[in-house]
Amino acid sequence: MIAEFSIVPIGLGESLSAHVARAFEVIESSGVAFEHHAMGTNLEGDWDEVMDVIKACRDSLLETSGRVSLSIKIDDRKGTRNRLERKVESARRKMQH
Amino acid sequence: MIAEFSIVPIGLGESLSAHVARAFEVIESSGVAFEHHAMGTNLEGDWDEVMDVIKACRDSLLETSGRVSLSIKIDDRKGTRNRLERKVESARRKMQH
Amino acid sequence: MIAEFSIVPIGLGESLSAHVARAFEVIESSGVAFEHHAMGTNLEGDWDEVMDVIKACRDSLLETSGRVSLSIKIDDRKGTRNRLERKVESARRKMQH
Amino acid sequence: MIAEFSIVPIGLGESLSAHVARAFEVIESSGVAFEHHAMGTNLEGDWDEVMDVIKACRDSLLETSGRVSLSIKIDDRKGTRNRLERKVESARRKMQH
Repeated sequence: MIAEFSIVPIGLGESLSAHVARAFEVIESSGVAFEHHAMGTNLEGDWDEVMDVIKACRDSLLETSGRVSLSIKIDDRKGTRNRLERKVESARRKMQH
Repeated sequence: MIAEFSIVPIGLGESLSAHVARAFEVIESSGVAFEHHAMGTNLEGDWDEVMDVIKACRDSLLETSGRVSLSIKIDDRKGTRNRLERKVESARRKMQH
Repeated sequence: MIAEFSIVPIGLGESLSAHVARAFEVIESSGVAFEHHAMGTNLEGDWDEVMDVIKACRDSLLETSGRVSLSIKIDDRKGTRNRLERKVESARRKMQH
Repeated sequence: MIAEFSIVPIGLGESLSAHVARAFEVIESSGVAFEHHAMGTNLEGDWDEVMDVIKACRDSLLETSGRVSLSIKIDDRKGTRNRLERKVESARRKMQH
Protein backbone atom coordinates (compact mmCIF):
# COMPACT_ATOMS: atom_id res chain seq x y z
CA MET A 1 0.00 0.00 0.00
CA ILE A 2 0.99 3.64 -0.35
CA ALA A 3 0.36 6.08 2.49
CA GLU A 4 0.84 9.81 2.50
CA PHE A 5 1.16 11.56 5.82
CA SER A 6 2.02 14.89 7.36
CA ILE A 7 2.53 15.78 11.01
CA VAL A 8 2.38 19.20 12.65
CA PRO A 9 3.15 20.15 16.26
CA ILE A 10 0.50 22.58 17.53
CA GLY A 11 1.66 25.46 19.70
CA LEU A 12 5.41 25.41 19.01
CA GLY A 13 5.43 28.44 16.73
CA GLU A 14 4.89 29.17 13.10
CA SER A 15 8.12 27.74 11.67
CA LEU A 16 7.90 23.97 11.45
CA SER A 17 11.00 22.97 9.49
CA ALA A 18 13.06 21.89 12.54
CA HIS A 19 10.23 19.56 13.60
CA VAL A 20 9.82 18.25 10.08
CA ALA A 21 13.57 17.55 10.04
CA ARG A 22 13.18 15.25 13.05
CA ALA A 23 10.41 13.36 11.28
CA PHE A 24 12.63 13.07 8.18
CA GLU A 25 15.34 11.46 10.31
CA VAL A 26 12.88 8.86 11.62
CA ILE A 27 11.53 8.18 8.12
CA GLU A 28 14.89 7.97 6.35
CA SER A 29 16.41 5.60 8.92
CA SER A 30 13.39 3.26 8.81
CA GLY A 31 14.24 1.40 5.62
CA VAL A 32 10.74 1.96 4.22
CA ALA A 33 10.49 3.41 0.66
CA PHE A 34 9.64 7.12 0.84
CA GLU A 35 9.07 10.22 -1.29
CA HIS A 36 9.06 13.67 0.35
CA HIS A 37 7.08 16.49 -1.25
CA ALA A 38 5.97 19.97 -0.23
CA MET A 39 2.89 18.79 1.67
CA GLY A 40 3.99 15.51 3.24
CA THR A 41 5.78 12.22 2.72
CA ASN A 42 4.60 9.18 0.76
CA LEU A 43 5.56 5.76 2.15
CA GLU A 44 5.21 2.36 0.49
CA GLY A 45 5.09 -0.96 2.34
CA ASP A 46 2.83 -3.27 4.34
CA TRP A 47 0.30 -1.77 6.76
CA ASP A 48 2.41 -2.53 9.84
CA GLU A 49 5.69 -1.30 8.34
CA VAL A 50 4.15 1.98 7.25
CA MET A 51 2.17 2.57 10.43
CA ASP A 52 5.24 1.84 12.58
CA VAL A 53 7.12 4.65 10.82
CA ILE A 54 4.23 7.10 11.26
CA LYS A 55 3.87 6.18 14.94
CA ALA A 56 7.62 6.67 15.48
CA CYS A 57 7.39 10.17 13.95
CA ARG A 58 4.46 10.97 16.24
CA ASP A 59 6.33 9.65 19.30
CA SER A 60 9.35 11.77 18.37
CA LEU A 61 7.32 15.00 18.05
CA LEU A 62 5.38 14.33 21.27
CA GLU A 63 8.71 14.44 23.14
CA THR A 64 8.79 18.22 22.67
CA SER A 65 5.18 19.12 21.88
CA GLY A 66 2.05 18.60 23.95
CA ARG A 67 -0.17 18.35 20.91
CA VAL A 68 0.37 17.05 17.39
CA SER A 69 -1.93 16.87 14.40
CA LEU A 70 -1.52 14.10 11.80
CA SER A 71 -3.09 13.58 8.43
CA ILE A 72 -2.83 10.16 6.71
CA LYS A 73 -4.21 9.13 3.32
CA ILE A 74 -3.89 5.53 2.16
CA ASP A 75 -4.26 3.89 -1.26
CA ASP A 76 -4.31 0.16 -0.66
CA ARG A 77 -4.48 -1.98 -3.78
CA LYS A 78 -4.05 -5.74 -3.65
CA GLY A 79 -1.20 -7.35 -5.51
CA THR A 80 0.65 -4.19 -6.46
CA ARG A 81 4.20 -3.11 -5.68
CA ASN A 82 6.61 -0.33 -6.59
CA ARG A 83 3.83 2.15 -7.27
CA LEU A 84 5.53 5.14 -5.64
CA GLU A 85 6.96 6.39 -8.92
CA ARG A 86 4.79 4.48 -11.34
CA LYS A 87 1.47 6.11 -10.39
CA VAL A 88 2.31 9.52 -11.89
CA GLU A 89 3.88 7.89 -14.94
CA SER A 90 0.84 5.70 -15.48
CA ALA A 91 -1.51 8.70 -15.61
CA ARG A 92 0.88 10.73 -17.74
CA ARG A 93 0.96 8.04 -20.42
CA LYS A 94 -2.81 8.35 -20.75
CA MET A 95 -2.83 12.11 -21.31
CA GLN A 96 -4.16 13.18 -24.71
CA HIS A 97 -1.50 15.80 -25.40
CA MET B 1 -6.06 10.77 21.07
CA ILE B 2 -8.97 11.32 18.72
CA ALA B 3 -8.85 10.00 15.16
CA GLU B 4 -11.32 10.56 12.40
CA PHE B 5 -11.33 8.16 9.50
CA SER B 6 -13.30 7.23 6.41
CA ILE B 7 -12.85 4.27 4.10
CA VAL B 8 -14.07 3.85 0.53
CA PRO B 9 -13.85 0.76 -1.70
CA ILE B 10 -12.82 1.81 -5.23
CA GLY B 11 -14.51 0.10 -8.15
CA LEU B 12 -17.50 -1.49 -6.42
CA GLY B 13 -20.08 1.00 -7.67
CA GLU B 14 -21.42 4.36 -6.66
CA SER B 15 -23.50 3.34 -3.64
CA LEU B 16 -21.29 2.79 -0.63
CA SER B 17 -23.72 2.33 2.26
CA ALA B 18 -23.53 -1.49 2.35
CA HIS B 19 -19.74 -1.26 2.64
CA VAL B 20 -19.96 1.45 5.27
CA ALA B 21 -22.37 -0.81 7.20
CA ARG B 22 -19.67 -3.50 7.40
CA ALA B 23 -17.20 -0.96 8.75
CA PHE B 24 -19.82 0.16 11.32
CA GLU B 25 -20.13 -3.45 12.53
CA VAL B 26 -16.37 -3.69 13.04
CA ILE B 27 -16.26 -0.31 14.82
CA GLU B 28 -19.26 -0.85 17.08
CA SER B 29 -18.12 -4.29 18.23
CA SER B 30 -14.60 -3.04 19.04
CA GLY B 31 -15.31 -1.42 22.39
CA VAL B 32 -13.55 1.81 21.36
CA ALA B 33 -15.49 5.07 21.87
CA PHE B 34 -16.90 6.27 18.54
CA GLU B 35 -19.01 9.00 16.93
CA HIS B 36 -20.36 8.51 13.39
CA HIS B 37 -21.07 11.54 11.22
CA ALA B 38 -21.86 12.16 7.56
CA MET B 39 -18.22 12.15 6.44
CA GLY B 40 -16.60 9.52 8.66
CA THR B 41 -16.24 8.16 12.18
CA ASN B 42 -14.36 9.68 15.12
CA LEU B 43 -12.63 7.25 17.48
CA GLU B 44 -11.05 7.98 20.86
CA GLY B 45 -8.41 5.80 22.53
CA ASP B 46 -4.70 4.98 22.56
CA TRP B 47 -2.81 4.83 19.26
CA ASP B 48 -2.81 1.03 19.11
CA GLU B 49 -6.49 0.64 20.07
CA VAL B 50 -7.60 3.14 17.43
CA MET B 51 -5.31 1.86 14.70
CA ASP B 52 -6.38 -1.74 15.33
CA VAL B 53 -10.01 -0.76 14.66
CA ILE B 54 -9.09 1.10 11.46
CA LYS B 55 -6.96 -1.82 10.26
CA ALA B 56 -9.82 -4.26 10.96
CA CYS B 57 -12.19 -2.12 8.86
CA ARG B 58 -9.65 -2.09 6.03
CA ASP B 59 -9.16 -5.87 6.27
CA SER B 60 -12.94 -6.35 6.14
CA LEU B 61 -13.38 -4.20 3.02
CA LEU B 62 -10.39 -5.81 1.25
CA GLU B 63 -12.25 -9.13 1.45
CA THR B 64 -14.63 -7.93 -1.27
CA SER B 65 -12.73 -5.06 -2.91
CA GLY B 66 -9.38 -5.07 -4.66
CA ARG B 67 -8.69 -1.44 -3.78
CA VAL B 68 -9.63 0.73 -0.82
CA SER B 69 -8.94 4.37 -0.04
CA LEU B 70 -8.60 5.54 3.57
CA SER B 71 -8.38 8.98 5.07
CA ILE B 72 -7.27 9.41 8.70
CA LYS B 73 -6.90 12.65 10.69
CA ILE B 74 -5.50 12.54 14.22
CA ASP B 75 -5.55 15.08 17.07
CA ASP B 76 -3.18 13.76 19.70
CA ARG B 77 -2.99 15.83 22.88
CA LYS B 78 -1.13 14.62 25.93
CA GLY B 79 -2.98 14.11 29.17
CA THR B 80 -6.49 14.54 27.80
CA ARG B 81 -9.45 12.16 27.84
CA ASN B 82 -13.14 12.14 26.98
CA ARG B 83 -12.76 14.83 24.33
CA LEU B 84 -15.11 13.28 21.78
CA GLU B 85 -18.08 15.35 22.92
CA ARG B 86 -16.27 18.06 24.83
CA LYS B 87 -14.39 19.56 21.88
CA VAL B 88 -17.47 21.05 20.21
CA GLU B 89 -18.84 22.20 23.58
CA SER B 90 -15.53 23.84 24.48
CA ALA B 91 -15.55 25.97 21.31
CA ARG B 92 -19.23 26.76 21.61
CA ARG B 93 -18.75 28.23 25.07
CA LYS B 94 -16.24 30.71 23.63
CA MET B 95 -18.54 32.01 20.91
CA GLN B 96 -19.40 35.70 21.25
CA HIS B 97 -23.07 35.40 20.41
CA MET C 1 -22.25 18.06 -2.22
CA ILE C 2 -21.06 17.48 1.35
CA ALA C 3 -17.74 18.86 2.52
CA GLU C 4 -15.99 18.28 5.79
CA PHE C 5 -13.36 20.74 6.86
CA SER C 6 -11.19 21.67 9.81
CA ILE C 7 -8.93 24.68 10.25
CA VAL C 8 -6.04 25.13 12.67
CA PRO C 9 -3.94 28.24 13.31
CA ILE C 10 -0.26 27.26 13.57
CA GLY C 11 1.83 28.97 16.22
CA LEU C 12 -0.89 30.47 18.42
CA GLY C 13 -0.56 27.94 21.24
CA GLU C 14 -1.91 24.54 22.08
CA SER C 15 -5.48 25.48 22.98
CA LEU C 16 -7.52 26.04 19.85
CA SER C 17 -11.10 26.39 21.10
CA ALA C 18 -11.21 30.21 20.95
CA HIS C 19 -10.13 30.08 17.29
CA VAL C 20 -12.60 27.31 16.53
CA ALA C 21 -15.31 29.48 18.13
CA ARG C 22 -14.60 32.23 15.59
CA ALA C 23 -14.94 29.73 12.75
CA PHE C 24 -18.23 28.50 14.28
CA GLU C 25 -19.56 32.08 14.18
CA VAL C 26 -18.71 32.39 10.49
CA ILE C 27 -20.26 29.00 9.71
CA GLU C 28 -23.43 29.44 11.72
CA SER C 29 -24.20 32.89 10.30
CA SER C 30 -23.68 31.70 6.70
CA GLY C 31 -27.03 30.01 6.19
CA VAL C 32 -25.35 26.84 4.84
CA ALA C 33 -26.45 23.53 6.42
CA PHE C 34 -23.81 22.35 8.90
CA GLU C 35 -22.99 19.59 11.40
CA HIS C 36 -20.17 20.12 13.93
CA HIS C 37 -18.34 17.11 15.32
CA ALA C 38 -15.18 16.53 17.34
CA MET C 39 -12.84 16.64 14.33
CA GLY C 40 -14.41 19.27 12.07
CA THR C 41 -17.60 20.57 10.52
CA ASN C 42 -19.64 19.06 7.69
CA LEU C 43 -21.30 21.49 5.28
CA GLU C 44 -23.88 20.74 2.58
CA GLY C 45 -24.56 22.94 -0.45
CA ASP C 46 -23.29 23.84 -3.90
CA TRP C 47 -19.53 24.09 -4.52
CA ASP C 48 -19.49 27.89 -4.40
CA GLU C 49 -21.69 28.18 -1.29
CA VAL C 50 -19.58 25.71 0.64
CA MET C 51 -16.22 27.07 -0.52
CA ASP C 52 -17.28 30.63 0.32
CA VAL C 53 -17.90 29.59 3.94
CA ILE C 54 -14.56 27.81 4.18
CA LYS C 55 -12.74 30.78 2.67
CA ALA C 56 -14.47 33.15 5.12
CA CYS C 57 -13.28 30.99 8.05
CA ARG C 58 -9.75 31.06 6.68
CA ASP C 59 -9.87 34.84 6.20
CA SER C 60 -11.11 35.24 9.77
CA LEU C 61 -8.29 33.14 11.27
CA LEU C 62 -5.61 34.84 9.13
CA GLU C 63 -6.54 38.13 10.85
CA THR C 64 -4.80 36.91 14.01
CA SER C 65 -2.54 34.10 12.78
CA GLY C 66 0.29 34.20 10.26
CA ARG C 67 -0.21 30.58 9.25
CA VAL C 68 -3.27 28.35 9.06
CA SER C 69 -3.67 24.72 8.06
CA LEU C 70 -6.90 23.50 6.46
CA SER C 71 -8.15 20.04 5.66
CA ILE C 72 -11.14 19.59 3.33
CA LYS C 73 -12.79 16.33 2.24
CA ILE C 74 -15.61 16.40 -0.32
CA ASP C 75 -18.23 13.83 -1.32
CA ASP C 76 -19.89 15.16 -4.45
CA ARG C 77 -22.72 13.03 -5.79
CA LYS C 78 -24.96 14.24 -8.61
CA GLY C 79 -28.65 14.67 -8.00
CA THR C 80 -28.60 14.17 -4.24
CA ARG C 81 -29.75 16.49 -1.46
CA ASN C 82 -30.23 16.43 2.31
CA ARG C 83 -27.56 13.79 2.82
CA LEU C 84 -26.06 15.32 5.96
CA GLU C 85 -28.13 13.16 8.29
CA ARG C 86 -29.23 10.48 5.89
CA LYS C 87 -25.76 9.07 5.16
CA VAL C 88 -25.27 7.53 8.60
CA GLU C 89 -28.87 6.31 8.67
CA SER C 90 -28.51 4.72 5.23
CA ALA C 91 -25.50 2.64 6.34
CA ARG C 92 -27.07 1.75 9.67
CA ARG C 93 -30.12 0.25 7.96
CA LYS C 94 -27.82 -2.14 6.11
CA MET C 95 -26.07 -3.47 9.22
CA GLN C 96 -26.63 -7.18 9.84
CA HIS C 97 -27.16 -6.95 13.58
CA MET D 1 -0.64 29.29 -0.24
CA ILE D 2 0.13 25.66 -1.10
CA ALA D 3 -2.70 23.18 -1.55
CA GLU D 4 -2.47 19.46 -2.07
CA PHE D 5 -5.42 17.67 -3.58
CA SER D 6 -6.48 14.34 -4.97
CA ILE D 7 -9.68 13.40 -6.73
CA VAL D 8 -11.20 9.95 -7.23
CA PRO D 9 -14.28 8.98 -9.25
CA ILE D 10 -16.36 6.46 -7.27
CA GLY D 11 -17.91 3.57 -9.16
CA LEU D 12 -15.94 3.71 -12.40
CA GLY D 13 -13.74 0.71 -11.69
CA GLU D 14 -10.50 0.03 -9.91
CA SER D 15 -8.06 1.57 -12.37
CA LEU D 16 -8.01 5.34 -12.03
CA SER D 17 -5.11 6.45 -14.23
CA ALA D 18 -7.25 7.50 -17.21
CA HIS D 19 -9.29 9.76 -14.91
CA VAL D 20 -6.18 11.12 -13.25
CA ALA D 21 -4.82 11.89 -16.74
CA ARG D 22 -7.83 14.12 -17.40
CA ALA D 23 -7.20 15.99 -14.15
CA PHE D 24 -3.52 16.37 -15.14
CA GLU D 25 -4.59 18.01 -18.40
CA VAL D 26 -6.74 20.52 -16.53
CA ILE D 27 -3.96 21.25 -14.03
CA GLU D 28 -1.12 21.54 -16.53
CA SER D 29 -3.04 23.89 -18.83
CA SER D 30 -4.06 26.19 -15.93
CA GLY D 31 -0.82 28.10 -15.55
CA VAL D 32 -0.74 27.48 -11.79
CA ALA D 33 2.52 26.10 -10.34
CA PHE D 34 2.14 22.37 -9.66
CA GLU D 35 4.00 19.29 -8.41
CA HIS D 36 2.54 15.82 -9.05
CA HIS D 37 3.40 12.99 -6.67
CA ALA D 38 2.13 9.46 -6.05
CA MET D 39 -0.76 10.54 -3.81
CA GLY D 40 -1.92 13.82 -5.36
CA THR D 41 -0.86 17.16 -6.79
CA ASN D 42 0.48 20.21 -4.94
CA LEU D 43 -0.56 23.62 -6.28
CA GLU D 44 0.80 27.04 -5.32
CA GLY D 45 -1.05 30.32 -5.80
CA ASP D 46 -3.77 32.55 -4.38
CA TRP D 47 -6.90 30.96 -2.89
CA ASP D 48 -9.05 31.71 -5.94
CA GLU D 49 -6.45 30.57 -8.50
CA VAL D 50 -5.90 27.28 -6.73
CA MET D 51 -9.58 26.60 -6.01
CA ASP D 52 -10.52 27.36 -9.63
CA VAL D 53 -8.14 24.61 -10.80
CA ILE D 54 -9.51 22.11 -8.30
CA LYS D 55 -13.10 22.96 -9.24
CA ALA D 56 -12.27 22.55 -12.94
CA CYS D 57 -10.85 19.06 -12.25
CA ARG D 58 -14.01 18.16 -10.33
CA ASP D 59 -16.23 19.49 -13.13
CA SER D 60 -14.23 17.46 -15.66
CA LEU D 61 -14.58 14.19 -13.72
CA LEU D 62 -18.30 14.76 -13.03
CA GLU D 63 -18.86 14.69 -16.80
CA THR D 64 -18.30 10.93 -16.77
CA SER D 65 -18.82 9.96 -13.12
CA GLY D 66 -21.90 10.39 -10.93
CA ARG D 67 -19.84 10.62 -7.76
CA VAL D 68 -16.38 12.00 -6.99
CA SER D 69 -14.40 12.16 -3.79
CA LEU D 70 -11.89 14.98 -3.21
CA SER D 71 -9.31 15.52 -0.53
CA ILE D 72 -7.69 18.95 -0.12
CA LYS D 73 -5.02 20.01 2.39
CA ILE D 74 -3.91 23.64 2.56
CA ASP D 75 -0.88 25.32 4.13
CA ASP D 76 -1.56 29.04 4.02
CA ARG D 77 1.26 31.23 5.31
CA LYS D 78 1.21 34.99 4.93
CA GLY D 79 3.92 36.72 2.97
CA THR D 80 5.52 33.62 1.51
CA ARG D 81 6.07 32.58 -2.10
CA ASN D 82 7.84 29.87 -4.08
CA ARG D 83 7.56 27.32 -1.30
CA LEU D 84 6.70 24.35 -3.48
CA GLU D 85 10.30 23.17 -3.68
CA ARG D 86 11.77 25.08 -0.76
CA LYS D 87 9.75 23.36 1.98
CA VAL D 88 11.51 20.00 1.68
CA GLU D 89 14.89 21.72 1.31
CA SER D 90 14.27 23.85 4.39
CA ALA D 91 13.61 20.80 6.58
CA ARG D 92 16.50 18.84 5.08
CA ARG D 93 18.98 21.59 6.01
CA LYS D 94 17.95 21.20 9.66
CA MET D 95 18.55 17.45 9.82
CA GLN D 96 21.28 16.42 12.25
CA HIS D 97 22.90 13.82 10.04
